[in-house]
Amino acid sequence: MVHSVIRSIAPDVGVVDICHQVPPHDVRAGSLTLVRSVQYLAPGVVLGVVDPGVGTERRAVAVEVADGEAVFVGPDNGLLAPAVSMVGGAGRAVELTNDAFQLPAPGPTFAGRDIFAPAAAYLSQGVDLAELGPAVDPLSLLPGLVPLPRTEGDSLATEVLWVDHFGNVQLNVGPDEVDAMGERVAVRWAEQVRVARRVDAFEGIGSGQLGLLVDSYGLMALALNRTSAADELVLKPGDLVTLELPGA
Amino acid sequence: MVHSVIRSIAPDVGVVDICHQVPPHDVRAGSLTLVRSVQYLAPGVVLGVVDPGVGTERRAVAVEVADGEAVFVGPDNGLLAPAVSMVGGAGRAVELTNDAFQLPAPGPTFAGRDIFAPAAAYLSQGVDLAELGPAVDPLSLLPGLVPLPRTEGDSLATEVLWVDHFGNVQLNVGPDEVDAMGERVAVRWAEQVRVARRVDAFEGIGSGQLGLLVDSYGLMALALNRTSAADELVLKPGDLVTLELPGA
Amino acid sequence: MVHSVIRSIAPDVGVVDICHQVPPHDVRAGSLTLVRSVQYLAPGVVLGVVDPGVGTERRAVAVEVADGEAVFVGPDNGLLAPAVSMVGGAGRAVELTNDAFQLPAPGPTFAGRDIFAPAAAYLSQGVDLAELGPAVDPLSLLPGLVPLPRTEGDSLATEVLWVDHFGNVQLNVGPDEVDAMGERVAVRWAEQVRVARRVDAFEGIGSGQLGLLVDSYGLMALALNRTSAADELVLKPGDLVTLELPGA
Repeated sequence: MVHSVIRSIAPDVGVVDICHQVPPHDVRAGSLTLVRSVQYLAPGVVLGVVDPGVGTERRAVAVEVADGEAVFVGPDNGLLAPAVSMVGGAGRAVELTNDAFQLPAPGPTFAGRDIFAPAAAYLSQGVDLAELGPAVDPLSLLPGLVPLPRTEGDSLATEVLWVDHFGNVQLNVGPDEVDAMGERVAVRWAEQVRVARRVDAFEGIGSGQLGLLVDSYGLMALALNRTSAADELVLKPGDLVTLELPGA
Repeated sequence: MVHSVIRSIAPDVGVVDICHQVPPHDVRAGSLTLVRSVQYLAPGVVLGVVDPGVGTERRAVAVEVADGEAVFVGPDNGLLAPAVSMVGGAGRAVELTNDAFQLPAPGPTFAGRDIFAPAAAYLSQGVDLAELGPAVDPLSLLPGLVPLPRTEGDSLATEVLWVDHFGNVQLNVGPDEVDAMGERVAVRWAEQVRVARRVDAFEGIGSGQLGLLVDSYGLMALALNRTSAADELVLKPGDLVTLELPGA
Repeated sequence: MVHSVIRSIAPDVGVVDICHQVPPHDVRAGSLTLVRSVQYLAPGVVLGVVDPGVGTERRAVAVEVADGEAVFVGPDNGLLAPAVSMVGGAGRAVELTNDAFQLPAPGPTFAGRDIFAPAAAYLSQGVDLAELGPAVDPLSLLPGLVPLPRTEGDSLATEVLWVDHFGNVQLNVGPDEVDAMGERVAVRWAEQVRVARRVDAFEGIGSGQLGLLVDSYGLMALALNRTSAADELVLKPGDLVTLELPGA
């Protein structure tokens, strides 16, 4: 329906689906999905809806990035913030209150269909941000919650950011902070510990071996040879994983 | 393949997918999917295929609505009928028998690919309905099976129409018939009974409380606070649910 | 992301998704998906990525078919080969090594995003194959692995090619080799045997009866009446199934 509402307003606009698999109400997962893809998106309008607070006081917003190349439309609940930061930060923002650019709702508002889709469609047709509602101070927008790794003595406390389609476990840390540990790294999680081997590519992981490599987003990931590391290690997004020297 | 067949005939047409998750052979679910979305569709051709009777005597049809704004293409098995009614009823209809507007099939016909997709594509390019086959009396089209609620003494016998992505349970009744029951409504299903509270929005549902609210389609729905009511109450489309005054 | 990378390079190109449900690393399933759909694809560029060997010596290639109507882009691991054969065989091919037509990768290459999507997009805009990298001898491309049925005495050893959305079990054999067996055919698999009845359409299958029919791709399939034959017989792609005269 969101696609169809957009086409009704903007018949010739190209629409690309980033993802429809974000779990219900999981703002963090939606936020990470956007961050992963945002640097590859074509210039235009980005529509994001993971919105457990629909019907409450949370604002519906449109946020233009500083260079004017993109506008993000969605709830002001932290969903959009990390992606906005990654492409240059918020320039100006408005609250989507002008119902001339909304659909009438037969019941309580289905915000994706009635507010966000029309806003995105009108913006794609050249309607100025300021027409959609009153200006909002970009500093008042709710920040996102992307966790940072912490150094604890000789170990590095990380968090699982993502598990991909293949079961590779992406951590919230890049190679700079892990390179000094060398070829073998002890990985601790829950009550378990296992030694991982630094490798350059998935194919460098031996059978039964746990690999630690830079993934295609430039972050460290735990991986097994053609099987799911997430399933075998029982790890999911948000889980804590400590990296340290073996025998430490 | 259906997309590709359409593009081969109508390279510039915009195609929007409504849904690919209708369970196999479930004409009722497909029919409800269409009804939910039809008022939001852009003008054009609507293609629907849930077709357990493929290969039998059921007709393949195209149905133009009375105002000429839309044409529905699919099997004459009740799938299209409720959506056609909702947007004004059938104006004229044809049976899709002209094989000049079909693909040759290597085996038995795969109707979506070989008959319905080409018909939809040619119609989108301006081919007149009458070229696709002989006229069919709109009154002879199989009606849809959308259940209506029934009043039984002081109670209202309803049916679950839909369970959405969040587990909210939509009933086949609007607020007009429920408002008189007031703030608290007894909900009976299977061997169980539970009191629901009328609320205005999902956020008004307390933890552990069953909420009854008008959903974004204007129908009554049972909902829990950020968890699936369908899972907790064990309800699915087609189940019977009785609403009545508590203590009745 | 692949869609968005393509749109960034080729904003007006139409993109059709064939399938996103190929199991991880399953080159055979990807290959069969392509073969099933290739004869229905509109002329253009076909992008296929099932790529367990990413990061190894396997080549990234673009293969133009003999009549120049289509180009296939993907890994040289047999994924593309059966589809290329079906539409006329390889005319010329190149290895995708020219990084002027690639995206820079933040870590190891995500080939779909960084190599294949840009190559497909540039080809759709008229860039000549030869610009993407050095010519490759089409005879050096890895062939596909589509199994052929074998006659063993009076019986025919077949393999399950595909299980569709409805649970119908497609075998790697057409009607020519089965017609001589007549109306009733014994089907052996694992330790089981069951007699199937030749029917012309799904509707000809009685309740509880196993049907054997020509499917919409022109191949023999095992089917039950509105329920999943794959679930009931416990068959999956790659399983061996022997067809023979009953009582043989």
